[in-house]
Amino acid sequence: MEKKVGVLGGGQLGAMLVEAANPLKIQVNILDAPNSPAKQVISNHGGHIDGSFKDPEAIRKLAAGSDVVTVEIEHVDTYVLEEISKTVDVQPSWRTIRTIQDKYAQKEHLMAHEVAVAQSVALKEASADELGRVADELGLPFMLKSRKEAYDGKGNFPVKSRHGFGPALKALGGNRELYAEKWAEFKMELAVMVVKTKDDVLSFPTVETIHENSICKLVYAPARGVSDSINKEAQELAKKAVSCFWGKGMFGVEMFLLPDDTLLVNEIAPRPHNSGHYTIEACPISQYAAHLRAILDLPLQQEDLVLDKQAIMLNILGGETPDSHLAFEREALKQRRTSIHMYGKGQAKKGRKMGHITVTAATMAEAEQLIEPMIYFADTGKVLERPNPPKEQPVVAVVMGSDSDLPVLQPGLAILAKFSIPYATRITSAHRTPTWMAEFASSAVSNGIKCIIAAAGGAAHLPGMTAAYTPLPVIGIPVKPTIGDGMDSLLSICNMPKGVPVATVSVNNSINAALLAARILGAGDPVMRKRVEQYMADSEAEVREKDRRLEEIGAVDYAEKYLAKK
Amino acid sequence: MEKKVGVLGGGQLGAMLVEAANPLKIQVNILDAPNSPAKQVISNHGGHIDGSFKDPEAIRKLAAGSDVVTVEIEHVDTYVLEEISKTVDVQPSWRTIRTIQDKYAQKEHLMAHEVAVAQSVALKEASADELGRVADELGLPFMLKSRKEAYDGKGNFPVKSRHGFGPALKALGGNRELYAEKWAEFKMELAVMVVKTKDDVLSFPTVETIHENSICKLVYAPARGVSDSINKEAQELAKKAVSCFWGKGMFGVEMFLLPDDTLLVNEIAPRPHNSGHYTIEACPISQYAAHLRAILDLPLQQEDLVLDKQAIMLNILGGETPDSHLAFEREALKQRRTSIHMYGKGQAKKGRKMGHITVTAATMAEAEQLIEPMIYFADTGKVLERPNPPKEQPVVAVVMGSDSDLPVLQPGLAILAKFSIPYATRITSAHRTPTWMAEFASSAVSNGIKCIIAAAGGAAHLPGMTAAYTPLPVIGIPVKPTIGDGMDSLLSICNMPKGVPVATVSVNNSINAALLAARILGAGDPVMRKRVEQYMADSEAEVREKDRRLEEIGAVDYAEKYLAKK
Repeated sequence: MEKKVGVLGGGQLGAMLVEAANPLKIQVNILDAPNSPAKQVISNHGGHIDGSFKDPEAIRKLAAGSDVVTVEIEHVDTYVLEEISKTVDVQPSWRTIRTIQDKYAQKEHLMAHEVAVAQSVALKEASADELGRVADELGLPFMLKSRKEAYDGKGNFPVKSRHGFGPALKALGGNRELYAEKWAEFKMELAVMVVKTKDDVLSFPTVETIHENSICKLVYAPARGVSDSINKEAQELAKKAVSCFWGKGMFGVEMFLLPDDTLLVNEIAPRPHNSGHYTIEACPISQYAAHLRAILDLPLQQEDLVLDKQAIMLNILGGETPDSHLAFEREALKQRRTSIHMYGKGQAKKGRKMGHITVTAATMAEAEQLIEPMIYFADTGKVLERPNPPKEQPVVAVVMGSDSDLPVLQPGLAILAKFSIPYATRITSAHRTPTWMAEFASSAVSNGIKCIIAAAGGAAHLPGMTAAYTPLPVIGIPVKPTIGDGMDSLLSICNMPKGVPVATVSVNNSINAALLAARILGAGDPVMRKRVEQYMADSEAEVREKDRRLEEIGAVDYAEKYLAKK
Repeated sequence: MEKKVGVLGGGQLGAMLVEAANPLKIQVNILDAPNSPAKQVISNHGGHIDGSFKDPEAIRKLAAGSDVVTVEIEHVDTYVLEEISKTVDVQPSWRTIRTIQDKYAQKEHLMAHEVAVAQSVALKEASADELGRVADELGLPFMLKSRKEAYDGKGNFPVKSRHGFGPALKALGGNRELYAEKWAEFKMELAVMVVKTKDDVLSFPTVETIHENSICKLVYAPARGVSDSINKEAQELAKKAVSCFWGKGMFGVEMFLLPDDTLLVNEIAPRPHNSGHYTIEACPISQYAAHLRAILDLPLQQEDLVLDKQAIMLNILGGETPDSHLAFEREALKQRRTSIHMYGKGQAKKGRKMGHITVTAATMAEAEQLIEPMIYFADTGKVLERPNPPKEQPVVAVVMGSDSDLPVLQPGLAILAKFSIPYATRITSAHRTPTWMAEFASSAVSNGIKCIIAAAGGAAHLPGMTAAYTPLPVIGIPVKPTIGDGMDSLLSICNMPKGVPVATVSVNNSINAALLAARILGAGDPVMRKRVEQYMADSEAEVREKDRRLEEIGAVDYAEKYLAKK
């Protein structure tokens, strides 16, 4: 690549940007202190500038040696960016960064473009009177925020009552410009990484962020327990929000999901973002590679931004001692399927982001199991001595409308055990617990279930209704009721309308239902398929042994013994 | 990490090793020319040595500043390695590198440890007489090879007849030591990356390598059309081969798969290897990270070395012009799901490895489709204007007892197409072609089929008989015969004896059979599951739209229009 990229800031975001640039042989010039994280992962090629990314002279020097200038932090001098934009391509636009770095201006801009945000009021001065006026307008509690230079919770102060005015002014007063936000009682925080290219706005999936002490701690990709429609809505809202800014590159959009399932944009970052680290391992193209492609007008497609695996990211924060993050790294190295990113920031201060880890897995349940010991370590500084016995995550759910179906299911459960298939059994009646049934079926995928066996008798609706709430294969076992031969159960299960299939087996035949589950799992798992083959071979051997005995002792004796056994 | 790693050689393997070391903050000291690829991707931290990795003095200097010394190339001075191993940890052992760098000694060593290799004979001198003696012993053709300094086909010469003795001596004579290998008429080349840790030998999966002009061109992970048992056997053979060497680190094991499905070890590399590049994108831990963990005694587990996605790697070789690889890069940037690794070697020579790309996907068929345009570009230097319609490997087989069942199957086939599920349709009658039916069902697994749909009417034995011959899930569609309502078909299919399940859908309901197949595939494939979810959402939207119209125009008008459409 011929074009050189200049970056204001050389922290971890700059470092990961460089790591994405290296394989494409894009020269990245970093403006930051010598040996800043980004400068550690690329040769001193002569284009770096040692200095502060706030120093106008240094910025001008960076621009002189670069074709495109971008930022890894928004707290920069946008007037110098405006000036250099006459001679060098600045992405995203200085105008975008200027608007976003003033959080109140950001909110006003979003509101002007009809993007849903929390109601906000600018303070004329840092005084108790002004806070009183705000309390009248927004109600209490509200969130008092510094308009500029705020990050990781620094510059935020929750004002819960009028008694809080004093402490709030003490914490945020001085000569800062302040504004207040209406309190958002959200049920979840979501985030979407959006990339603006020269002619498109694309997005990564919606993720869930967990903050602790106002610092991002965990990111779950995709967001857990969030419906597809909310996932899509959040992506659309994030794209709409980013569309109203100028220039190209990655944007991190943080959102609140409210109790009524509506979404508010909380904050936008005009750069790669902590909530997008997971893309390095979980997506074909990472947020860093996407940022480079966007600002350099290289091709990028929506299909590059999809989630190939479920992922959880955990930040490594500085702890009580300057090297506690190194103890964390040593522990993380012992964990399975765990990618470690240390930032090379030297000694840690408490709460400083020193690195992160990402685990990936085929299911979120598995990913949660993988990350559990490290969350425990982060919380307690201790090793999880007896990790909960790898409670094998069930992959088959066996549901029944009533416990009276259990005797029929027993032989099938024995087959699942014989095949070492972890399963869960639940009672979820279509008629008596319709909501619980729907809830269970709807969440089966995110709970790691791959196949559901449902047993029911008479007006046997459970298998079909379960199938209506899940994209998983559902196997129906017609249970013979006390009255009749079970044909009612069979037809209730089998004769589903076009569009919602149930794999029906014969009346009371839970063995075949379990074997079918094993075959279904075996379709994608050679180990399981081998077990099915072994079962078939054993079963053939058993019948041939019977045939041998029949030959040996003759039909008359055989029949006698057979009847005696019955 | 406190320990510093010194590497002899700073080519692309060294560079990718550095890229794996950076996020762990492991300082890697490179001994090679200034600005060699590995030195481009880490700061000039003061530990690099400028010079040749063949220069004893330079190696001693590297050792003085490092805690562990390793290699990215085996053509090094092992006597200097032996010397420095008294003061610094050398991994793998100099003894391993010395044995392996002499290909004949390598073969002898493997034979002594009962590892299957091609029969080999050392030449006493480079003469026609010696070649005659070799021809008597090994037969013709045979492969003449240089014992040392051979790579990418350089140093190999096939001797087809006694007339080839002259040209062979001309090509390989001089003062090289030579040996000859019995000709291996292999059907496929396989490779396994093995990692030797302080107390374990672990392996990545078995991959398929395609060579062109003796240079590795493509790597398919996993190997295509290779049975599970051969895959495992290859891993076991590779681990056995590596176990007989000394020290720790990654080893690349290249193998031949012979027509009778036996395996021969071809060559071993005591370092990360071209056939393991795919691990960067496709496995939780790459071969480079695994090498670092092994030589530094950091934890590593077999579960870190599994394949999360199917992957294909294509080397970018230098072409006719010094910058043809840059044209390749520009093309590759346009492709979906494609990771690009350029090595930063400057100007290309023809056939020189300048970079590589890796595509990943949920299925090999999809990965093959993704890579196709770039293979075409590599072969022709031209852009594939109209990519061949993807000849996809069928994963669902639709079988019917008679072509009269086709009209019933039609709507189901349309669903399979809508879900982009590649399928095959065959006529295999249980009663009229019992042998063909059995043959087809028995070979379905090895033909890549994951699920079978079988349609039959009347005495409908096809689904059950098919299920008797395969461990795959079989979905049965009862077809309504000309006489009766189809209950005979339904019960013939559904009421299977315990032990052999058939997933039965309702009479003539091929749509539900196809949807069930999609759900079964989706049990192990999130992409397919999303398609099922989308189908369910669309179907819900369709019904709700009908409900809206019913509200709008009223039941009477609606019924009229409905009847008119019928």
